Amino acid sequence: MPSRRHLANAIRALSMDAVQKAKSGHPGAPMGMADIAQVLWTDFMSHNPQNPNWANRDRFVLSNGHGSMLLYSLLHLTGYELPIEELKQFRQLHAKTPGHPEYGYAPGVETTTGPLGQGITNAVGMAIAEKVLAAQFNRDKFAVVDHHTYTFLGDGCLMEGISHEACSLAGTLGLGKLVAFWDDNGISIDGEVEGWFSDDTPKRFESYGWQVISGVDGHDPEQISAAIEKAKGDTTRPTLICCKTVIGFGSPNKQGKEDCHGAPLGDAEIELVRKELDWPYAPFEIPADVYAGWDAKQKGASEEAAWEALFADYQQAYPELAQEFVRRKNNALPESWSHESAKYIRSLQDNPENIATRKASQNALNAFGPLLPELLGGSADLAGSNLTIWSGSKGVSKDDASGNYLYYGVREFGMSAMMNGITLYGGFKAYGATFLMFMEYARNAVRMAALMKQPCIFVYTHDSIGLGEDGPTHQPVEQVVSLRATPNLDNWRPCDQVESAIAWKAAIERTDGPTTLIFTRQGLPQQNRSAQQLSDVERGGYVLVDSDSAPQIILIATGSEVHLAVEAAAKLNAEGLPTRVVSMPCTDLFDRQSAEYKESVLPRATTKRVAVEALAKDTWYKYVGLDGAVVGMDTFGESAPAGDLFAYFNITADAVYNVARGLK
Amino acid sequence: MPSRRHLANAIRALSMDAVQKAKSGHPGAPMGMADIAQVLWTDFMSHNPQNPNWANRDRFVLSNGHGSMLLYSLLHLTGYELPIEELKQFRQLHAKTPGHPEYGYAPGVETTTGPLGQGITNAVGMAIAEKVLAAQFNRDKFAVVDHHTYTFLGDGCLMEGISHEACSLAGTLGLGKLVAFWDDNGISIDGEVEGWFSDDTPKRFESYGWQVISGVDGHDPEQISAAIEKAKGDTTRPTLICCKTVIGFGSPNKQGKEDCHGAPLGDAEIELVRKELDWPYAPFEIPADVYAGWDAKQKGASEEAAWEALFADYQQAYPELAQEFVRRKNNALPESWSHESAKYIRSLQDNPENIATRKASQNALNAFGPLLPELLGGSADLAGSNLTIWSGSKGVSKDDASGNYLYYGVREFGMSAMMNGITLYGGFKAYGATFLMFMEYARNAVRMAALMKQPCIFVYTHDSIGLGEDGPTHQPVEQVVSLRATPNLDNWRPCDQVESAIAWKAAIERTDGPTTLIFTRQGLPQQNRSAQQLSDVERGGYVLVDSDSAPQIILIATGSEVHLAVEAAAKLNAEGLPTRVVSMPCTDLFDRQSAEYKESVLPRATTKRVAVEALAKDTWYKYVGLDGAVVGMDTFGESAPAGDLFAYFNITADAVYNVARGLK
Repeated sequence: MPSRRHLANAIRALSMDAVQKAKSGHPGAPMGMADIAQVLWTDFMSHNPQNPNWANRDRFVLSNGHGSMLLYSLLHLTGYELPIEELKQFRQLHAKTPGHPEYGYAPGVETTTGPLGQGITNAVGMAIAEKVLAAQFNRDKFAVVDHHTYTFLGDGCLMEGISHEACSLAGTLGLGKLVAFWDDNGISIDGEVEGWFSDDTPKRFESYGWQVISGVDGHDPEQISAAIEKAKGDTTRPTLICCKTVIGFGSPNKQGKEDCHGAPLGDAEIELVRKELDWPYAPFEIPADVYAGWDAKQKGASEEAAWEALFADYQQAYPELAQEFVRRKNNALPESWSHESAKYIRSLQDNPENIATRKASQNALNAFGPLLPELLGGSADLAGSNLTIWSGSKGVSKDDASGNYLYYGVREFGMSAMMNGITLYGGFKAYGATFLMFMEYARNAVRMAALMKQPCIFVYTHDSIGLGEDGPTHQPVEQVVSLRATPNLDNWRPCDQVESAIAWKAAIERTDGPTTLIFTRQGLPQQNRSAQQLSDVERGGYVLVDSDSAPQIILIATGSEVHLAVEAAAKLNAEGLPTRVVSMPCTDLFDRQSAEYKESVLPRATTKRVAVEALAKDTWYKYVGLDGAVVGMDTFGESAPAGDLFAYFNITADAVYNVARGLK
Repeated sequence: MPSRRHLANAIRALSMDAVQKAKSGHPGAPMGMADIAQVLWTDFMSHNPQNPNWANRDRFVLSNGHGSMLLYSLLHLTGYELPIEELKQFRQLHAKTPGHPEYGYAPGVETTTGPLGQGITNAVGMAIAEKVLAAQFNRDKFAVVDHHTYTFLGDGCLMEGISHEACSLAGTLGLGKLVAFWDDNGISIDGEVEGWFSDDTPKRFESYGWQVISGVDGHDPEQISAAIEKAKGDTTRPTLICCKTVIGFGSPNKQGKEDCHGAPLGDAEIELVRKELDWPYAPFEIPADVYAGWDAKQKGASEEAAWEALFADYQQAYPELAQEFVRRKNNALPESWSHESAKYIRSLQDNPENIATRKASQNALNAFGPLLPELLGGSADLAGSNLTIWSGSKGVSKDDASGNYLYYGVREFGMSAMMNGITLYGGFKAYGATFLMFMEYARNAVRMAALMKQPCIFVYTHDSIGLGEDGPTHQPVEQVVSLRATPNLDNWRPCDQVESAIAWKAAIERTDGPTTLIFTRQGLPQQNRSAQQLSDVERGGYVLVDSDSAPQIILIATGSEVHLAVEAAAKLNAEGLPTRVVSMPCTDLFDRQSAEYKESVLPRATTKRVAVEALAKDTWYKYVGLDGAVVGMDTFGESAPAGDLFAYFNITADAVYNVARGLK
């Protein structure tokens, strides 16, 4: 059996060789953390390389994602479907080994990392999911959900603000099965960190209520092993293991320096490393005994088999719970869902109410919530404004995690990246809310959900100048433009309680990407719809009001401006100008409809088009073209009552009417 | 002389009455922090209500900006130009008293706050500016820059990740003149914070290297006063004063509860408060003795006069330094600037080089830097990639703050909000850099710069799939769409070293808003330009290549795609299709040109238009309309060498040619 150091050196060699071959990448972190990884993955990680989807596996998140070769090496060496050829293709088009670990490429990659600080936050989300799922499903003698979440992070993750949000909440929630390893190598891209990062990190994490294990030599397997044992021994607090490491360990001339962080070592230095580490093998050559030392297939299979046996007994003892567990893990909706949700939506159409869409959203939650125990909701300290708490909401706390609602605190970015972790974990439909404006604090986590195609539901209320007196810092203008420009993201801005409920339904049914639900603070009138129109809402855009003859003018609107368009159209039609109103609650979905359907809604022949939305106009030119016009915002908002602002910014039915009349 | 409590109650009364009259707002924080504010503003703050722009005033930032009535009350009571009528107009259109404090409305408001965590970060920026300016200008016996920065913050600010970024760096830089007051009232919007915020905050700030003064009764003037004395006594560390307060202090039924955080107390409760506080006056009525107790005009005038005398002596002793101080405080560019910058740009046009625009940016810094001692640069730990360090860069450190470069660490949001604070402070042109993708982490601070019209310079490199192997987490797609949709923000994406230098020049000369400079990682060919074209670059968009006859096709491009358009146009023109290329490095600026100029560049008669940009397409439909087309990105990127990616995503000269030929 090769020594632990020799096993770890396989990571070092693969990492430096793959980076060298790719002519770019980050050898420093994999070489620095190889010894920690060897101990964790060989002695502690419970995982089955032949089934990366085993529900009760330990989770591993490489928060310092630039060290991707560390993870690829581990997955390859322990027996995942990641052959050496893929490592040779590191960073090449369509390889399973992109520059940063991307979810959905190599098996065993639990989340996409690279944007610093989000990996540890995803890991916090996974540990929350584990704790909540365990509280919901475990029964005496049947700990069917019972595993750890491990994460590696570097100084960069610790400097990022999101690490504060995530680790603070992790402490409050007592995530005792979360174990983080800090790669304390004293180096970041600009050099020795002491000039810009002098935190007493152990003290910082103690202030969050973590168990902190300081002063571990990250190259001493015994110290690492003892630290992990101690981490696992404390089941009430998350643990930070502070590992002193040498970046680029093994590189005689570059270790301990920023040079080895993000560039190939160079052929000459690599030769020196081989000598230094006593690793006489060719690039990408791993001796059979080293493979054998790493191979986790058999151990993993037996661990999973033991769990399967436990689960079989659980099925006997708690058949309904077991069935529900399987359903949730498979992301299957309850059988009643389709019928019940459709019925609710029809009832809304039949029983009009003029309410704010944020209130309509809460009503939808009250209707859909009882059907969906997988809902795990929350808000960034705006529950009473976002209206995210429904009648069946129960808070998750340190001592009772069986609830379905997270008080995320004022942590928008943390919330969103935790939602990504929860959703990746499985078994939940996570929704989380803030004011639309403060989506910006969380923007990159929303993008990460879209990149990873995770069906998170981001609820954003107070969606325009309609927010009123809180003023321009709180009034969205350009935010929805940014969301709509994001690939894979569906964005709904509904105009009444009916569209709001349909938006929720679409978000809940979506499996291949996230959804934003954008709601008003202020009340909105309900629109009339035929059965066909009601069904067409699900296409993202549809004819809400039509003219008697072929339309000469088309008004396109969303959300709180739909009723302005309807009012303007009534006047235009009355004056003999055939005018159509298109409600377009989800442009993303509308753009995916067939060319025929789109032409039926927006006939190319009708060039007099006005889009109306109390937001930045950029989205709308692709629908109105050079001949049309947009009624919207060109500036930031102001602080005043909402009605005064719509008048001041000239976003009114009269304005729409006038602009439409003025088109040539 | 009224008691301190009676003086503080004036804040409480004005706050509750103004919120009640506005029917919205936040009485809890002003009522809770009134006693602290009374001590600070009466006994310690050095400021002159009659000259809010006095250079050496203490700065005060209300980071919990929703408590705006606290600040408006203080400004009104101490003698700023903010009459009681403005307080009665709280939250109404065009009042000087918007819902959150907005820079540029009421005199004495140092920065716009409301988005939580950014106020404390602005304050850190101001304290950095004070420290650097002092190091640059103070001489023995002449401490012409010598004052404190005070900030109030609540639990919300402390939960936000950005507070970690800012306070960590504040500790590292030893900002001894920064004093923060934590409003420790145990309440946030969702209720008692213990369920979601259980940090040991004093310990956390100790871990950052702050002086922490714990356990201060925020309603005991003597304790508050002693704490401020102690804070000022430590000149090497920032200080956090932890003040235990009762939110809504004075409200018999609502104090200490979240009810009083963000809603009017109601007329009945307000009556009870008047009794409880022994404040028998009508709404907005302040007795003369209370006004007298607050009035800071005389004290402020004499403080400023003393400083003016010091500065007069300084002018005698150091005339050149004094002149330079005045120049920088007035945001005047050096006399040589106009001539020298134009000369440099002409020399670039005359000496073509094919280089990455990030390198061209560094070259521009090397050319312009020696002219501009007001430059205060930095990068979020990417100096070597962003190329933000120039030959005259010198790092700012705790012990030597006389430099002009900040190592911000991996803190994009913190950096950007600190830049806002530095720029608001005056005397500096702050630039700061990260990868374009990680602008998203900082997005709301960029928006705040635009909202406040502050001429910060945000440098963003690695601006598309041209970044290559780091993959989709690092490859911008939709980011520039979001920036361009932001009011007041000018965004430059230059195509070669000439446009890069002109972009820098525009950013440096801009006074009424921020600029983003968006640069490539990869090399780009230089374009030819006549003198007229060179001059027209400053219009944001111009004809770079024209057809011999009236154009039938117009290709519009920016940055790394301009040379593709030029290549495609050559082929089209050779085939007898008159084709024009418009380079549009700054759409924002182009949109502000006269209708005549815009028509001359993009004649309405030419409807065959193709925009080319390796980014999301949404920006471009307003230029190409329904008859045109956009060559760009519809999806996220991939990890591969840049050349492979442009080919894979079909963003090539051939693709542009084909799309142009296919237009009907």
